[in-house]
Amino acid sequence: MLTFEGQKIQGSQNIVAKLTSLPFQQCKHNITTVDCQPSGPAGGMVVFVSGNLQLAGEEHALKFSQMFHLMPTPQGSFYVSNDIFRLNYA
Amino acid sequence: MLTFEGQKIQGSQNIVAKLTSLPFQQCKHNITTVDCQPSGPAGGMVVFVSGNLQLAGEEHALKFSQMFHLMPTPQGSFYVSNDIFRLNYA
Repeated sequence: MLTFEGQKIQGSQNIVAKLTSLPFQQCKHNITTVDCQPSGPAGGMVVFVSGNLQLAGEEHALKFSQMFHLMPTPQGSFYVSNDIFRLNYA
Repeated sequence: MLTFEGQKIQGSQNIVAKLTSLPFQQCKHNITTVDCQPSGPAGGMVVFVSGNLQLAGEEHALKFSQMFHLMPTPQGSFYVSNDIFRLNYA
């Protein structure tokens, strides 16, 4: 599930629909910090990222913070179980 | 476990020692956003907080983001399994 600027969206189809509906075509991510920790006996991982977003044609970058909770799949990969995104307004 | 501005600290005693060693006596938290999601079948919860910190005697507030991963206890309460803290520099 995704919480995007406070909006709660559940299910991969709904999340893809939200992300593809955002009103820009290009966005460059500049990552400033990445922190991660194991999240418990199930083999998950929490990841915390902060940085800047530069939209095409916009002069100023937007600061953001985002956390992911990754859980293991039986195939030895991970899926995004939780995703929370926030812009950091000055 | 706690990741504080990139520093990794494990165990409740070490975390308390770190937090009590911070070089100020008073810090006022002004919370701007709180987002939370259930974190999986074990009954945990991820919480994402952003806001401002106002230290006693300092003119300017510091912006921060922090995430917690709370896990249930057998007593029906929660404990902080993961805690990641970052200041958001302008």
